[in-house]
Amino acid sequence: MLYMVDMTVNLPHDMPADRADDIKAREKAYALDLQRQGKWPHIWRVVGEYRNISIFDAADHSELHQLLSQLPLFPYMVIKVTPLCQHPSSLQAQS
Amino acid sequence: MLYMVDMTVNLPHDMPADRADDIKAREKAYALDLQRQGKWPHIWRVVGEYRNISIFDAADHSELHQLLSQLPLFPYMVIKVTPLCQHPSSLQAQS
Amino acid sequence: MLYMVDMTVNLPHDMPADRADDIKAREKAYALDLQRQGKWPHIWRVVGEYRNISIFDAADHSELHQLLSQLPLFPYMVIKVTPLCQHPSSLQAQS
Amino acid sequence: MLYMVDMTVNLPHDMPADRADDIKAREKAYALDLQRQGKWPHIWRVVGEYRNISIFDAADHSELHQLLSQLPLFPYMVIKVTPLCQHPSSLQAQS
Amino acid sequence: MLYMVDMTVNLPHDMPADRADDIKAREKAYALDLQRQGKWPHIWRVVGEYRNISIFDAADHSELHQLLSQLPLFPYMVIKVTPLCQHPSSLQAQS
Amino acid sequence: MLYMVDMTVNLPHDMPADRADDIKAREKAYALDLQRQGKWPHIWRVVGEYRNISIFDAADHSELHQLLSQLPLFPYMVIKVTPLCQHPSSLQAQS
Amino acid sequence: MLYMVDMTVNLPHDMPADRADDIKAREKAYALDLQRQGKWPHIWRVVGEYRNISIFDAADHSELHQLLSQLPLFPYMVIKVTPLCQHPSSLQAQS
Amino acid sequence: MLYMVDMTVNLPHDMPADRADDIKAREKAYALDLQRQGKWPHIWRVVGEYRNISIFDAADHSELHQLLSQLPLFPYMVIKVTPLCQHPSSLQAQS
Amino acid sequence: MLYMVDMTVNLPHDMPADRADDIKAREKAYALDLQRQGKWPHIWRVVGEYRNISIFDAADHSELHQLLSQLPLFPYMVIKVTPLCQHPSSLQAQS
Amino acid sequence: MLYMVDMTVNLPHDMPADRADDIKAREKAYALDLQRQGKWPHIWRVVGEYRNISIFDAADHSELHQLLSQLPLFPYMVIKVTPLCQHPSSLQAQS
Repeated sequence: MLYMVDMTVNLPHDMPADRADDIKAREKAYALDLQRQGKWPHIWRVVGEYRNISIFDAADHSELHQLLSQLPLFPYMVIKVTPLCQHPSSLQAQS
Repeated sequence: MLYMVDMTVNLPHDMPADRADDIKAREKAYALDLQRQGKWPHIWRVVGEYRNISIFDAADHSELHQLLSQLPLFPYMVIKVTPLCQHPSSLQAQS
Repeated sequence: MLYMVDMTVNLPHDMPADRADDIKAREKAYALDLQRQGKWPHIWRVVGEYRNISIFDAADHSELHQLLSQLPLFPYMVIKVTPLCQHPSSLQAQS
Repeated sequence: MLYMVDMTVNLPHDMPADRADDIKAREKAYALDLQRQGKWPHIWRVVGEYRNISIFDAADHSELHQLLSQLPLFPYMVIKVTPLCQHPSSLQAQS
Repeated sequence: MLYMVDMTVNLPHDMPADRADDIKAREKAYALDLQRQGKWPHIWRVVGEYRNISIFDAADHSELHQLLSQLPLFPYMVIKVTPLCQHPSSLQAQS
Repeated sequence: MLYMVDMTVNLPHDMPADRADDIKAREKAYALDLQRQGKWPHIWRVVGEYRNISIFDAADHSELHQLLSQLPLFPYMVIKVTPLCQHPSSLQAQS
Repeated sequence: MLYMVDMTVNLPHDMPADRADDIKAREKAYALDLQRQGKWPHIWRVVGEYRNISIFDAADHSELHQLLSQLPLFPYMVIKVTPLCQHPSSLQAQS
Repeated sequence: MLYMVDMTVNLPHDMPADRADDIKAREKAYALDLQRQGKWPHIWRVVGEYRNISIFDAADHSELHQLLSQLPLFPYMVIKVTPLCQHPSSLQAQS
Repeated sequence: MLYMVDMTVNLPHDMPADRADDIKAREKAYALDLQRQGKWPHIWRVVGEYRNISIFDAADHSELHQLLSQLPLFPYMVIKVTPLCQHPSSLQAQS
Repeated sequence: MLYMVDMTVNLPHDMPADRADDIKAREKAYALDLQRQGKWPHIWRVVGEYRNISIFDAADHSELHQLLSQLPLFPYMVIKVTPLCQHPSSLQAQS
């Protein structure tokens, strides 16, 4: 099941640089891992912002919440989830 | 180049059913054609709304505007375009 | 899987009364049917508004969209869907 | 009498972890206690957010305010209360 | 139990004057009746707008919804209900 | 002359408890004094929030601003003032 | 007593031109009359919009509501009233 | 003096096509004329919307309001004007 | 040329009182000076808020930005500028 | 390809002055360099705000994101990007 997830990051300005670097490194490793598992099929950077638009593919709402709440940047993000389904005008819906 | 396009449809309640059906049929044919050309790689229905979230792949801004303004439903939609680029934590960015 | 669905109805003021009555009667029959099937476990009226807050229980996003888009009042409603999951402080999560 | 309560938690990033843990533990115990008393019949996690949607059942507005203002997380939450009543299309309204 | 009710009226510009006058006359009679019964203890005009701020005193949410949904202007109003309770710094709370 | 005043309190989380208690005690004394003088005829708590809805009765705008800006919590509040007048459907307007 | 009044005009597109002209002519005459009486000391056009920012000087809220609700364009305007008082850094406050 | 002007067009769906074409033709001629005069140095289409972002260069506010209010599409547009001045980091400010 | 300027002040709660007093004293002296020069013909306090509505009269946008950016409170204010021009229904426009 | 970029700066009030000066000096040098390269053809100050409206000319979305994310003030800005294309009523579109 697909979900659009819109994530905006707001790191506190007074966070020490090495702590920020550590969180970002863990975030990246985690994101790559979920992509390799097929749980996070798309992640795009929104141009000019510290924000991404992603598509997640999760078995159910609980799994998605688990995946998102374990993001190392989770405490510093504003996240909005939008459930998606097949569009009747998509190629996939024609078969 | 990728763009997220968020489209919400507001058909006037007094539009005759056959006219609405005609516009929707042309919209669907057009959407399928652009998908087959690779210009419109993703289209998803937002659950519970007459709205879609799409990803367009256009050569430049002008082409995207051409593609969108020729949608048969264009006069009845609120459209918002967000430019996207590769995310540094995406699998594609690792190679 | 649970979803909160927030529905606000805006009937055009010039809709003939018998047509409005017919739509509302079909809406009610449909709502009762979905409740009996267990798909729509809760529906509450928001006090002072022509609006309801509902909880739907659907197998997946596609089923929810099917259920909502077949509401007789669907063309006249603003709908917002919020995916819900078990809260760690709920009684159900303690067992 | 039923109320929908929408609670979003914003813990300060500089709160010491043990203090946050203590508040959350007391919040959970309090939430379970109110659920067992039947005052807080539903609590759901909003997917991807540190936020819940709840249904409270209180004797009157004063009791609800007492219940909410004693939440250990109350100083760190944005809360919005919406009064609900029986919907004419609910199963309960048919008898 | 007290509720603040904020009502904004939007009459369609093409409503015939005699029909508007009839609705307003019935609205006024109804408002006076509820005030005499003590259900609607305060009604104030918001200066410069076709809008009022009111305080209702109802036995419960259901009664309030009954009172509001029977307003002759109900189909033409945007209504927002806010539940109120005794303030700890009010004179009434000191006794 | 009547004014609706909507006040939301945002105390900084790092304010020492005794300082907060002192401000709240002075706020309460001041609020009671203005109520006894008839300047602040109504104050209600908004259920679930650290916010009140009040009615002030002041000789003119200047007096109201004096009254509000001397609130001990003034620096920590978001205040919105709405001027009110007699409603033509109020009981008072019928005599 | 001074009030800022922000008025935005939305004339229906299907209003016959002569009816619109008549309303505008009466609006202008009324506005000039109130300016001559000193009730409406300032009126400015907001550049690029069918909207004005005005300062009214009325004896009290009731008078202001009378003045505004008798504007010929009143049914077609969105109006927002903001009460103003002397600023401590104004020249007038120094004497 | 420079102004950013953001214009969004909302043509009524029931406007006859020849009337819409006539207005658009006059709008285009007028826009070209102002560009040739140097009053309207930039006009860009916002991708995916019936909206433009423009820069106007007018002698003063009055002239700008004259220019904008004579746009044939003026009654059908939402316009927002933002005054601009030289930026201290612009090349022009370095000489 | 006239501009409406809406200024809201947000002083940090942890600013030392003597520093705040110093900034406010300089702000007042500066405001009085600009009023005496005729650059700042009106300043009004918005009732109940730490905010003013002002009218500035500047030769051009650059001068206005100079005037505003030199306000001692500038770093602590949210400012919104709205360009104004003569209204066709003003007394001044009749001569 | 053109983009409108709207940048609002929010420097923390407790940033030491020399650090702020250093960031601003690097920002200015960087802005001038991009202007000289033709990547940043327009930058205007929004009157009365610590904000600019800019036009960028970038080869693609990736380049624009690179340019913006390397702004020394990037961590302290709210940025919004709007893709622009040639307007059919522009002089450039007539040839």
